[in-house]
Amino acid sequence: MRMSEFLHKDSLGPVVEQDMHKDFGEDGFKLECGETLPALDIRFETYGTLNETADNVVWICSPLTADAHVAGFHSKEDKHVGWWDALIGKGKAVDTDKFFVVCSNILGGCKGTTGPASINPKTGKPYGSKFPKISIGDMVRTQKVLADYLGIKHIYAVIGGSMGGFQAMKWGIFYPDFIERLVIIASSPRFSSQALGFEIVARDVITQDPNFNGGDYYESEFPRIGLANARKLAHITYLSAEGMEQKFKRAAAKEAHTKATQAYATPFDMNIPLESYLRYQGAKFVERFDANSYLQIAHATDTFDLESEYGSLEKAFEGIHADVLNINLSSDWLFPPDESRKITTAFLNTKKNITSLEYDTAFGHDGFLIEGNKLGKSIGRFLNVSNSKSKTSNISTIFSDGVALKLLQNFIKENDRILDLGCGDGSLLATLKAQKNVQGIGIEKDETCILSCIHKDVPVLQKDLDKGLNDIAENSFDLAILNRTLQEMRDPLGLLQEILRVAKYVAITFPNFGNWSVRSALLFRGRMPKSKELPYEWYNTPNIHLFTLRDFTRLCEKQGLKIEKMVIDNDDALSKGLTAIGLKNLGAERVLAIISKKDL
Amino acid sequence: MRMSEFLHKDSLGPVVEQDMHKDFGEDGFKLECGETLPALDIRFETYGTLNETADNVVWICSPLTADAHVAGFHSKEDKHVGWWDALIGKGKAVDTDKFFVVCSNILGGCKGTTGPASINPKTGKPYGSKFPKISIGDMVRTQKVLADYLGIKHIYAVIGGSMGGFQAMKWGIFYPDFIERLVIIASSPRFSSQALGFEIVARDVITQDPNFNGGDYYESEFPRIGLANARKLAHITYLSAEGMEQKFKRAAAKEAHTKATQAYATPFDMNIPLESYLRYQGAKFVERFDANSYLQIAHATDTFDLESEYGSLEKAFEGIHADVLNINLSSDWLFPPDESRKITTAFLNTKKNITSLEYDTAFGHDGFLIEGNKLGKSIGRFLNVSNSKSKTSNISTIFSDGVALKLLQNFIKENDRILDLGCGDGSLLATLKAQKNVQGIGIEKDETCILSCIHKDVPVLQKDLDKGLNDIAENSFDLAILNRTLQEMRDPLGLLQEILRVAKYVAITFPNFGNWSVRSALLFRGRMPKSKELPYEWYNTPNIHLFTLRDFTRLCEKQGLKIEKMVIDNDDALSKGLTAIGLKNLGAERVLAIISKKDL
Repeated sequence: MRMSEFLHKDSLGPVVEQDMHKDFGEDGFKLECGETLPALDIRFETYGTLNETADNVVWICSPLTADAHVAGFHSKEDKHVGWWDALIGKGKAVDTDKFFVVCSNILGGCKGTTGPASINPKTGKPYGSKFPKISIGDMVRTQKVLADYLGIKHIYAVIGGSMGGFQAMKWGIFYPDFIERLVIIASSPRFSSQALGFEIVARDVITQDPNFNGGDYYESEFPRIGLANARKLAHITYLSAEGMEQKFKRAAAKEAHTKATQAYATPFDMNIPLESYLRYQGAKFVERFDANSYLQIAHATDTFDLESEYGSLEKAFEGIHADVLNINLSSDWLFPPDESRKITTAFLNTKKNITSLEYDTAFGHDGFLIEGNKLGKSIGRFLNVSNSKSKTSNISTIFSDGVALKLLQNFIKENDRILDLGCGDGSLLATLKAQKNVQGIGIEKDETCILSCIHKDVPVLQKDLDKGLNDIAENSFDLAILNRTLQEMRDPLGLLQEILRVAKYVAITFPNFGNWSVRSALLFRGRMPKSKELPYEWYNTPNIHLFTLRDFTRLCEKQGLKIEKMVIDNDDALSKGLTAIGLKNLGAERVLAIISKKDL
Repeated sequence: MRMSEFLHKDSLGPVVEQDMHKDFGEDGFKLECGETLPALDIRFETYGTLNETADNVVWICSPLTADAHVAGFHSKEDKHVGWWDALIGKGKAVDTDKFFVVCSNILGGCKGTTGPASINPKTGKPYGSKFPKISIGDMVRTQKVLADYLGIKHIYAVIGGSMGGFQAMKWGIFYPDFIERLVIIASSPRFSSQALGFEIVARDVITQDPNFNGGDYYESEFPRIGLANARKLAHITYLSAEGMEQKFKRAAAKEAHTKATQAYATPFDMNIPLESYLRYQGAKFVERFDANSYLQIAHATDTFDLESEYGSLEKAFEGIHADVLNINLSSDWLFPPDESRKITTAFLNTKKNITSLEYDTAFGHDGFLIEGNKLGKSIGRFLNVSNSKSKTSNISTIFSDGVALKLLQNFIKENDRILDLGCGDGSLLATLKAQKNVQGIGIEKDETCILSCIHKDVPVLQKDLDKGLNDIAENSFDLAILNRTLQEMRDPLGLLQEILRVAKYVAITFPNFGNWSVRSALLFRGRMPKSKELPYEWYNTPNIHLFTLRDFTRLCEKQGLKIEKMVIDNDDALSKGLTAIGLKNLGAERVLAIISKKDL
């Protein structure tokens, strides 16, 4: 097998670039800046087959400097595959046997879609400095032109990473009835000031290159040095500090410079791999990208700011109908997790079905390109949710005899909004959804559990409860469920208060440390008790704030909380007996209580 | 009061710039690169008075682009004071009534000390591209020339932040007997790869400015644009993402551009304050700094790498005699806390007296300049330690009747190395030092406690024990003391194993959850017990892994740990009685055990 065959063995191909052209006549194609373009050229690729109802579409939005070639290979000699090949293909997360996948080169770029190097029909010369300013919205409207041209009636999912995430959000805002699902990866509602600072420096470095000439350089020397330096700078922001440290250990042998980089050597060079690496990145970029396109697209990202545009993120997302999967990357500092979380929060507070994931990676922002396999796990499940609503899962683990579950089911009304804190694999919410059509959202730390939730179509936020709920708006849920986790929290009282801020009622279950078997273990054996309910050793137990039923009722009194309902659940005969004769604190093994603030 | 009087009211002044010149004859002043300089000019400032023994000196090392003007004002019209004025002056942390303070402009700079713009006596023209490459070591040796010129016999403390920290470490390495104390702030053993990446881009941006001309531009146009862009880039790395976000809220009114920045406006400008701010930083810098100096000094920092130079950080620090205070800043990502901690670790593992502090700031790397008052708290105490060794503190809080303390004192040998985990205000270590001349180091989270330790001259590391001890070398202590904190740890067993890796013996004290009063509270009241030993509510107790004396002895058996000594300490009569008749697990209120690995 030849090297290229090996590279291509899991990939689609050969795939082909396609082009469309549309004239917009007198009116032109209107841009958000107020100017118009007389016509649009769009270069794109498609994989898979559009079905008869023209609705099996997965639309990929390209990030800043990528292009339409998102998967597969163009010819057998290709040494590369598309930039998200790990994610898209036969049997992959975005399965081309099932979906019709489209990706286009973005407006303002330099790879076949109309951009500053295109010929201005009015002058017969490249637009250059005359190319109008474009926006993320313009990019999306251009893509809609392509969707219409392809006869697409409905998009099942729009997927975008980085600036592609900006476009995905705009797709959801502009065409709410056209789209079922949105996947947003390593993105944010706008650039941070720090990211914007780097953008400003990169822009100045390009526009102050003596060859830039205000953007009209197509008939002379290109501003290569400025563009290369801008790229070196940007490239550092795509990597993480940790990733760079691993890659460029200073102790590493001093590699020979490549030819491309020797040309840029300075008397202050240290002859370290990092120098040649950055210069290579700059030189390579200059070969494949146009400075005006870079400035145009960067300007579109710099000015993207949903909060300023719509008044608030919530107002921006209000009309979106799609279910959303939002993923952030731990070491991404260009689109930092905290910025990405604002997207999640706004979807949550506009009562959308939002699932959020926090991926651990050392690759920084570039992780959204490199970690295709990892991303595929959640994206694949999100695109292929199990629709068998009849299959209610086995949730007997919650309370063995079902008394508590029955109480909970009776308490819940149709269409209630429910927050399940520590929701595990989503079984309870899936069951409640099937039975009562509730809108449930889970919170869970564990990734495997979260993947199960996604597969069950249960929205879930990856989150550590110890970090609080301050991103969730007041009274946004009818009921919160806290199943056996209160005693594991760093600050149980603080969490309880937080939960009662966001939900009207809280259903809470806990093991009773006052149970007779617990007391006697300490009394007679003089050791920290272990039991079916408390199976850990003292030094490794997650149950760091144990309490008794009486402790709990006293706390409710003190905090002005009303116990609406309470049931006790026991396996043991003595426990059952003690409970039966009213010695609840001695008898109870497990407790379910539904509480509320008294002033309700 | 005029504005400048108000600005100057707590400052020294007027202070004056001073100059020295020294010819080095035939041999020249030898640089680490192998080349020589025929003579040195050094510009410096001094505050306070050198005492008769010429040893009351505090030496300040300048960071990259600062200068000798570290405190006070030059004339009544000055609108600024020196760059570390908050720290240095009458009654301030570096008290000029007590100390003779010196700071010089560094070698390679452009403010009066020999640098690339100085006249090369061989040619009668500025050195320019002919200026030899300088190193941090060269800067320090130049400063030693000044110290000798001033007749200084001994330096009490060298203080340096950022690149000044690089110099401080070199001072300690080069002149171990000359220096008593080192203060290193926001520094690291070398640049991270990320920081170095930005340095490379900045360097390329300057050297590729068409006006740079290889460094020989003094008779033509200066490379102003390149230097300004390099500065804008560097400036972003001095701020934190959080700090920038606070400073440049996108919603902020669009400020008018300053004149200086309008000159650089581009068609892609967004007219936001961040643009004018960065351009102002660039323009201002070009007025006060020379591109060759910037490249020279940056090159010295880029190539500074103690590990490569000496084989390891430990080997670099081995010969240092000084006591060290090392401070990192939470939001500094140019010299990140983790890099700074490597300095602490290396001093710790070469058995120096090292104190480390973690300062919380939103100012990023610039915090070392801006947070002068905050830094002054620890630096002031570090320079003015209490020498009254007779004053042993009140440490009765450890064990009420002193039985445990006596056991501990008997167990400890003269000159033992002791690690006190959770050392509080350092009283115990101060007492043990006075009595047994131990070399003690504390670990503590709380800043107020740490300041007390510093004042008592007890070395202490600011550290969260839950984050482990993996930076401490094996068997580096004779004894570790863990006073009433094991039950507060997230992972008590893991910590215990870690402690026994770094220390031969562990003296551990804990409250006994098996005490009769605890048991009866749970038995008869059915509530989580509260007592003098356990004063918290179940939901807010830091004691998250309670255990009984029996639990503890069983754990020791299981883990193969030997209990060398044990004493029980009680207040309560019944507890005393129960202990006396051998019912220790029922009787003990508090326990001190000294344990070791069995194979000792």
